[in-house]
Amino acid sequence: MSTEPVLLAGSWRDSEKTGFFQSANPATGKLLPAHYPVSSWADCETALAAAQAAFAEMRTMPGETLAAFLESYAAKIEERAAELVAMAHLETALPKSPRLADVELPRTTAQLRQAAHAARHETWRQPVIDQASNIRSCYGAIGPVCVFGPNNFPFAFGSASGGDFAAAIAAGNPVIAKANSSHPGTTKLFAEAAHEAALETGLPAGAVQLLYRTSHSIGEQLVTDDRVGATGYTGSRSAGLALKRAADAAGKPIYLELSSVNPVVLLPAVLEEKGEALAAEFTTSCLMGAGQFCTNPGLVLLLAGETTERFIADLAKRFREAPVGTLLSESVRKSLHESHRILTGAGAEVLCGTGPGDGAGCCVANTLLRVSGAAFLGDPETMQTEAFGNSSLIVVAATLDEAAKVLEKLEGNLTGATYSAESGADDAAHDRLEPILRQKVGRLLNDKMPTGVAVSPAMNHGGPYPATGHPGFTAVGLPASILRFAVLQCYDNVRPHRLPRILRDDYEGSAQRWVEGRWS
Amino acid sequence: MSTEPVLLAGSWRDSEKTGFFQSANPATGKLLPAHYPVSSWADCETALAAAQAAFAEMRTMPGETLAAFLESYAAKIEERAAELVAMAHLETALPKSPRLADVELPRTTAQLRQAAHAARHETWRQPVIDQASNIRSCYGAIGPVCVFGPNNFPFAFGSASGGDFAAAIAAGNPVIAKANSSHPGTTKLFAEAAHEAALETGLPAGAVQLLYRTSHSIGEQLVTDDRVGATGYTGSRSAGLALKRAADAAGKPIYLELSSVNPVVLLPAVLEEKGEALAAEFTTSCLMGAGQFCTNPGLVLLLAGETTERFIADLAKRFREAPVGTLLSESVRKSLHESHRILTGAGAEVLCGTGPGDGAGCCVANTLLRVSGAAFLGDPETMQTEAFGNSSLIVVAATLDEAAKVLEKLEGNLTGATYSAESGADDAAHDRLEPILRQKVGRLLNDKMPTGVAVSPAMNHGGPYPATGHPGFTAVGLPASILRFAVLQCYDNVRPHRLPRILRDDYEGSAQRWVEGRWS
Repeated sequence: MSTEPVLLAGSWRDSEKTGFFQSANPATGKLLPAHYPVSSWADCETALAAAQAAFAEMRTMPGETLAAFLESYAAKIEERAAELVAMAHLETALPKSPRLADVELPRTTAQLRQAAHAARHETWRQPVIDQASNIRSCYGAIGPVCVFGPNNFPFAFGSASGGDFAAAIAAGNPVIAKANSSHPGTTKLFAEAAHEAALETGLPAGAVQLLYRTSHSIGEQLVTDDRVGATGYTGSRSAGLALKRAADAAGKPIYLELSSVNPVVLLPAVLEEKGEALAAEFTTSCLMGAGQFCTNPGLVLLLAGETTERFIADLAKRFREAPVGTLLSESVRKSLHESHRILTGAGAEVLCGTGPGDGAGCCVANTLLRVSGAAFLGDPETMQTEAFGNSSLIVVAATLDEAAKVLEKLEGNLTGATYSAESGADDAAHDRLEPILRQKVGRLLNDKMPTGVAVSPAMNHGGPYPATGHPGFTAVGLPASILRFAVLQCYDNVRPHRLPRILRDDYEGSAQRWVEGRWS
Repeated sequence: MSTEPVLLAGSWRDSEKTGFFQSANPATGKLLPAHYPVSSWADCETALAAAQAAFAEMRTMPGETLAAFLESYAAKIEERAAELVAMAHLETALPKSPRLADVELPRTTAQLRQAAHAARHETWRQPVIDQASNIRSCYGAIGPVCVFGPNNFPFAFGSASGGDFAAAIAAGNPVIAKANSSHPGTTKLFAEAAHEAALETGLPAGAVQLLYRTSHSIGEQLVTDDRVGATGYTGSRSAGLALKRAADAAGKPIYLELSSVNPVVLLPAVLEEKGEALAAEFTTSCLMGAGQFCTNPGLVLLLAGETTERFIADLAKRFREAPVGTLLSESVRKSLHESHRILTGAGAEVLCGTGPGDGAGCCVANTLLRVSGAAFLGDPETMQTEAFGNSSLIVVAATLDEAAKVLEKLEGNLTGATYSAESGADDAAHDRLEPILRQKVGRLLNDKMPTGVAVSPAMNHGGPYPATGHPGFTAVGLPASILRFAVLQCYDNVRPHRLPRILRDDYEGSAQRWVEGRWS
């Protein structure tokens, strides 16, 4: 069987493969024609050796060269936009417009350009200079980075195009991209463009490499290899935790973005003030992209009462009436059904949905489940099963105390939102719940749904375990996201001409430096 | 058996103990009279509940209050300096002066005062403000921190007094201190002073707590508890890795400072220039404090040649003639002998030492071992066995290529130093080796021994695994060391009056903020 080539050590070549796979069009269920190789360790070995060699050049490469690559790559993505959008639409069924062409693609190129800015101006390095002691430090590149991309953002989180890729390269790290199996063709197009940009801008041969799939055990071997600096992973909790176990045991940093139910707390008085508007807002947020966002609001916490009942009834009506989106793959569909089975098995009531959807291709009916606060507290772990897709669980707490207990039992999440009345009538309840919620989430929102993740320097797309593997890092927002792929490097009494330029006394660049206790 | 009380939930009380232990005076080998309890889980449960309650207050406490505590505590340490020095000398045999009284104690109070400055001015929080998107973020407190202190710095790294303690408190985290078993009396005196300072400055009851010892399994249970934010551990690799496994599996950040051999590369021409001075400098650095520094130079890399042979002979003579220091405990002595047994068993030649020392009490003769680069490369893992104490391994590489291979095989270390000739005659060799060494160490030195660890904002007392558990963090140097005990917290559209003051538009404090892409 002839399969698509892998990108290793600077050239597209046949994989030393152990098998192959095809992706499917989720809108039709049909397999797509291309065959992609499942790589053996031999491919990984080639990739690691080339990445190590590339890193020796890239770690001290001028930021300008890295920036030139990232900008050239962004331009090439724009040139191939139609092709990328068509392929991603085929492989994911995500709408061509506005989603892929007008939202995700510009987001992706903007991220690459922001990463270029961070590389050029070295804004991520945080130079600290103690002239009296002649000790200086800054962040430096960590080493080759393995990137495992998710199924739900084939562009902006893609393993050869997304935020992890951009952040890793900006610090001077080669990337070994592992395509998500649901959109290998899209990832290949990106890798082609990146490879062309790398050739044109003088990046070394192993700067950008692409594998499509490996066995789990080979994936674990890859992230623990001595030559790897760190790994970025976005995807399912079970696969992510298996990689984490392996990487942890080897002492290799791994940054994970796993599951999150993104609790939204809607307090009684704000439901009185604008319940219908909130029901509309929630419906849009929860069903956007068939609910397949990491920050999809999958858990709604309400306080028992008549207004709450009216709100729930309105919400269920809107869910029933809203169009049903196509899911990313058959495995997403199966997994959503399985989550519903687990939640209802634990006592959640079905307000609407759980059955087959009437949308195109692979889909599940828009689903709302409901459970009491007491029932939630009876099995909080099961009740936090993520139902990835167009689905949410409503938790109705009998009292404010019970609502507080529900929040105390939450695992770590990417986001948590509170809505409270403009009148101030919810303030006491808010102030009781907010301190609990704050420590459970990376991003706290007021009066806003969590779905959108702005590419802002102030963004935190992160949070406590198990939303991620470490609560101190963000996967979105530059320059902060680069710190995941950086190490702190100190220079003690190092001769001036051997210092990185950014640490020298005669530095004339644009980066701000922490000198004698102040940014200057 | 009546035992010393533990400090739990704001009071000194009897431990719910499962046993007891005594510390010994390493200068005499005699047990000291006090009996310290081994805590059961019941003590940990009390500590965790109190820490959780304290955290609810401390996480939003004004930095001024935390600073007042840290400063009051520093002053109380100075008031009790004589008592602390006497007790630490009894328990560790470290010299009273200058070491304990004139170096380590002032270092400890200086760290506490620098942490107070960081808390007061919130220099650690890195506020980032995106006004256009109304998204803001900064670091916040992580939650109760367990601190396991090492045997070798009873003050400056002590679990209730050292760098981890100061950093955790500065961010608003309660500390559960686990005393090092070799100096429980010293740790108790610190906890008494800290407790008094906490009472006087209004810290909550669970802000500072002290346990002396637990079983390994209860220690593991402690660091994985839901109520714990993070753990700081400095000590032996085996105990540290057991805690790491447990904490990693629970998704709890743990910051480790484990073993490090701190390679020093002395190139041929600099040995020609000033071989005798270097031999003297190395001897002082390696034997200071009987070599019991985390940054003790335990591996010397030399290139074969006549100058090198003269240098080695000189070094061995100095080691034989230098006074032999007292080790911290019988277990350090045993472990040093065991390391020598492993290294010589793998082929290292004994130049001097390995036998009993002629110093006071618990000691081992000053030891120099030697191995060829080829022999090192035959079993690099064993050859990197840390010999904690007054001992070092000399590796003589036949060629520059072989030296490069030795460095490539090094594990992660805290420090790495190179010495090269002023004349420039070593520059080619230096430039070949430096890029390899740079990625293996947290702190790179030129023309300087690694032993001293300045408390500087530019310090990195950290490095790649297994020197530590994460290469992005430092255990020494403020405000950076605080980031280990912090989480990234984002506020998206949060109402202005609910924001931390440091993120508000009308902020008038002294912290610098990253606003619209600049520190201001």
